[in-house]
Amino acid sequence: MNILIVHAHPEPQSFCTAMKDLAVSTLEQAGHQVQVSDLYAINWNPVASAADFAARSNPDYLVYALEQRHAHGQGALAADISAELDKLLAADVVIFNFPMFWCSVPAILKGWIDRVLVSGVCYGGLRFYDRGGLSGKKAMLSFTLGAQPHMFANEQAIHGELSLMLRHLQRGTLAYAGLSVLPPFAAYHVPYIDHDARTTMLADYREQLLRLDELQPLSFPNMAAFDRQLNPLD
Amino acid sequence: MNILIVHAHPEPQSFCTAMKDLAVSTLEQAGHQVQVSDLYAINWNPVASAADFAARSNPDYLVYALEQRHAHGQGALAADISAELDKLLAADVVIFNFPMFWCSVPAILKGWIDRVLVSGVCYGGLRFYDRGGLSGKKAMLSFTLGAQPHMFANEQAIHGELSLMLRHLQRGTLAYAGLSVLPPFAAYHVPYIDHDARTTMLADYREQLLRLDELQPLSFPNMAAFDRQLNPLD
Repeated sequence: MNILIVHAHPEPQSFCTAMKDLAVSTLEQAGHQVQVSDLYAINWNPVASAADFAARSNPDYLVYALEQRHAHGQGALAADISAELDKLLAADVVIFNFPMFWCSVPAILKGWIDRVLVSGVCYGGLRFYDRGGLSGKKAMLSFTLGAQPHMFANEQAIHGELSLMLRHLQRGTLAYAGLSVLPPFAAYHVPYIDHDARTTMLADYREQLLRLDELQPLSFPNMAAFDRQLNPLD
Repeated sequence: MNILIVHAHPEPQSFCTAMKDLAVSTLEQAGHQVQVSDLYAINWNPVASAADFAARSNPDYLVYALEQRHAHGQGALAADISAELDKLLAADVVIFNFPMFWCSVPAILKGWIDRVLVSGVCYGGLRFYDRGGLSGKKAMLSFTLGAQPHMFANEQAIHGELSLMLRHLQRGTLAYAGLSVLPPFAAYHVPYIDHDARTTMLADYREQLLRLDELQPLSFPNMAAFDRQLNPLD
């Protein structure tokens, strides 16, 4: 398979970066082709703006999603966006590897989502969820965080269920664009654990990576259960 | 009251920008002091990095939150961060005004959160939720989106409940840092509605702004219900 790892950590010696490196070596050894977009290393620009379009359908009033669609059709997307979109479209699996910042991705990675998940290609009209532009591909979040598992264990936990805190990413972004979302790998408590615990965690991650093909995707809405106005059918 | 509006839209003629302008005029007429951080206008840098610290506790290995805490103590935070942090600390109410991008804030605004909500000031140790560093202040999301209300009406809706899609922002960010979170103002279906509908929507927003003081904050965890390991007490 072709696997794209979108990685976003400002410290090359971090545990999060070690997870990225482990994913590259593990997946290559398993016979996959692996590409990495190391957003800090390439100094990725996360700010969606008019500068992203060499040609505009409306030069006087910016509607970002409409200009994405227009520019993609004209070959007028900024070069950095086109390069990432090509990698995304060539991938069978996309792994987002990051430190959790404020229960979400760091801004540099949010800006990859904002700019690369181009309207008209990745979604648009009624093409979303199982009919999304990226359907047939898989995605997985792998991230480090300071919290411990019991803090995200269920709705009685201090931060509630992890899956609900991640809803904007797993459902509102990845599943929305048609990706099958594999169970996330959460590396809990990373700043506070010792070398042995980190070694064990990397071994656990390696095992999950070797089972990418067998992992059961999470469940998200099926468009057949909604009418054209997107009301539930029953 | 002192009110800070953090605004993030790339198009000055947008409806979202009109909401920001309306908030400024309405709140000033009501006797409040209003500051605006217009992130696109000031070319805000959203990327958390080592460049944010003029002095480091560990120059060889970047742990962003630890360096935030250290740099704040030393007066070594980057000037753009310090300026925004001063505005935040002077505010009684913070309004985040933005177009919803991928069920969250645009990257430029995520980068305001990542860089300005400084560890050791806004949160840290067991200082979060009702004990968070910003407790006593209020926050509110006001945003535009393409979807219609029925698409976020409840868990049977195509995108589920709006409050769960916003959990990472309202609970994982604002409430976590101690802010009392007021009900959000969601300007639905904005790209598709006519002038009259937009006028009505602005009038509705104005009414909400005039009732800021009376709005009942949303409910979030109370630290007294958890032990020191953050397990629920019952």
